Amino acid sequence: MDNFSFCTPTEYVFGRGVESQVGEYSVKYLGTKVLIVSGNNSAERSGLLNVVRQSLNARSIIYVELNGINPNPTDDKVYEGIKICREKGVTGVLAVGGGSVIDTAKAIAGGVPYAGDFWDFWSGKSVMVEALPIGTILTIAAAGSEGSGNSVITSLKTRQKISIRTNVLRPKFSLLNPELTMTLPPYQTACGIVDMMAHIMERYFSNTPDCEVTDRMCESLLTAIIASAPTVISDPENYQARANLMWAGTMAHNGVCGVGRAEDWTSHGMEHELSALYGVAHGAGLSVVFSAWLSYVSKFNPAKVEQFGRRVFGVHTAGEAINELKKFNSSIGMPVTLSELGIASPDIPLLVSNLHKTKGSIIGSYYPTNAEASYEIYQLML
Amino acid sequence: MDNFSFCTPTEYVFGRGVESQVGEYSVKYLGTKVLIVSGNNSAERSGLLNVVRQSLNARSIIYVELNGINPNPTDDKVYEGIKICREKGVTGVLAVGGGSVIDTAKAIAGGVPYAGDFWDFWSGKSVMVEALPIGTILTIAAAGSEGSGNSVITSLKTRQKISIRTNVLRPKFSLLNPELTMTLPPYQTACGIVDMMAHIMERYFSNTPDCEVTDRMCESLLTAIIASAPTVISDPENYQARANLMWAGTMAHNGVCGVGRAEDWTSHGMEHELSALYGVAHGAGLSVVFSAWLSYVSKFNPAKVEQFGRRVFGVHTAGEAINELKKFNSSIGMPVTLSELGIASPDIPLLVSNLHKTKGSIIGSYYPTNAEASYEIYQLML
Repeated sequence: MDNFSFCTPTEYVFGRGVESQVGEYSVKYLGTKVLIVSGNNSAERSGLLNVVRQSLNARSIIYVELNGINPNPTDDKVYEGIKICREKGVTGVLAVGGGSVIDTAKAIAGGVPYAGDFWDFWSGKSVMVEALPIGTILTIAAAGSEGSGNSVITSLKTRQKISIRTNVLRPKFSLLNPELTMTLPPYQTACGIVDMMAHIMERYFSNTPDCEVTDRMCESLLTAIIASAPTVISDPENYQARANLMWAGTMAHNGVCGVGRAEDWTSHGMEHELSALYGVAHGAGLSVVFSAWLSYVSKFNPAKVEQFGRRVFGVHTAGEAINELKKFNSSIGMPVTLSELGIASPDIPLLVSNLHKTKGSIIGSYYPTNAEASYEIYQLML
Repeated sequence: MDNFSFCTPTEYVFGRGVESQVGEYSVKYLGTKVLIVSGNNSAERSGLLNVVRQSLNARSIIYVELNGINPNPTDDKVYEGIKICREKGVTGVLAVGGGSVIDTAKAIAGGVPYAGDFWDFWSGKSVMVEALPIGTILTIAAAGSEGSGNSVITSLKTRQKISIRTNVLRPKFSLLNPELTMTLPPYQTACGIVDMMAHIMERYFSNTPDCEVTDRMCESLLTAIIASAPTVISDPENYQARANLMWAGTMAHNGVCGVGRAEDWTSHGMEHELSALYGVAHGAGLSVVFSAWLSYVSKFNPAKVEQFGRRVFGVHTAGEAINELKKFNSSIGMPVTLSELGIASPDIPLLVSNLHKTKGSIIGSYYPTNAEASYEIYQLML
């Protein structure tokens, strides 16, 4: 267990109907003028945005709106949001949506008080020290952005998809109503399940010894997610299964699964290249990448893979563990090969080249992955 | 899973030597004049208080000191601390010690800005809305007060030992160095282990259905504690076992184990009466109380006890689960009967009468415990 510091100040308000409290929490945290950030009309169609507007109106909070945030969100909407905030004197940013919406809201919040180009923080040119306060109303259990300080944005110019992590971007509050996720189709729900499991496993597969508490917590969340998954797929309006999944998704990525140790994140890096090149859904891509990555690294470093198999799936070898993970992903309708993902002829040399251009020549820590290794891992996805 | 709100804003700084950063964190959170609260000389003898003074001096923070806080802390020291803070214009309170020291520091911090008697908050006459900022340097892994909003204080006049819980009292920062716990004798270490396990189990034994995530997290922490316990007892200077135990103790009581459901706390109530009447150590008392309580309630409500046995100890019946818990407690040198605790002839009618006078005629929620039931539970401790 390494030294660490850890702080999750987000106020979580969880349960049926909590979105109607957004006015109250905006007064408390966001100030008098709010930018509402949302996606492509689903929050409008469902009536959620109207609930938000009414609640803000009731507290005399002025708001402006930015909608149309797409999956794998891009910097153009961030620039647009920053401009609106500066022109209108916005005091806080409210995200109404899933990970892409929240990540965009965070980038806007970080960009407004900064004199330079907001992308400086993502490119590593500058370190963020302040941001407008951020609130969220979550509509998809997946990305964990509602409880994290992470934000992933793609630059339209360079096509780089980059993630940053800073406590400055942790939301002040997140309103989590599992009912809002009931209308998600099974495919998107399953993508969310894979994503949250990956957030745990990226932290779990670590060589830092003696992290018994954190290991056990990771395993407990994985076990709970696997237990809830069949129900949310077969019975999408099951409130309790949705609720367990939503809370697991938040805990998966708020940092508690990673304290005191090196994390890996090779699989996320490899998936980001798949998304960038082929436009696949992040969760579906991770479903293909993660078991291939596990297969490769378990040849060199099987101990933790065996522990994962034993404690999460009740099996005895690394090979069985990987099979169980694939079987689980297939059972919820997720692809486990690139062809199942719809990529018949992947350009593996280009994927490898892009990956190491963005992330450096060696990535990950559970197994340090160079270009030769990442080539083999992409091959294992065929 | 019930609706809930949950916020743990404490900044945890964990690892070797972190106590020397107290000046930096005091500047950030506690202001320019700090009251240092400590216990009976062990922090002085070990040199810890000198490290603290030097670190505060280096940041030009003025401090005053209040020492001599005893286990089962009493209101007299709280009044003394409040008086000092007001006279000296103290801006923040720093606890250097274990649960008793931190609970006292919290009570002082809540009392200073309040015009009435601080005890009003504990007696239920008033609700706390503000407090001076609180920081902690933890020296015992047990009470979890370093990450909670709880404070337990005993009134010398009424002999009532009362616990309150409010987010207002959550520490701003907690510096957690496992090395500081290495000099604790095995008996005190074991008391801490029992206490943190009880904090989890008081939340785990709940009738609220569909709390799979929270159940699994509780079980994971219990499993990790049970795994680390033999090592810290046999090898007190084992850093990694001490580290896992310290972090588990914080997670056990910061609230994450209780979200979304009714909690019980009958065992803590019953133990508080044992401590008040016979002056026993809180953890040792809990060791006797908890298995007796489990034995009694499992007659009426065995399902969760069976789940506990299955998932934590790998056994199949409630009876076996209770036996495993007793065996574990005995293995770390803890008593499992009142006579082993040194109470040969307990005055059970008085314990029952005091318990229900303080806590009301029915206590707990996993099994609603009236005076007849609590009498039988105390009998089971013989």
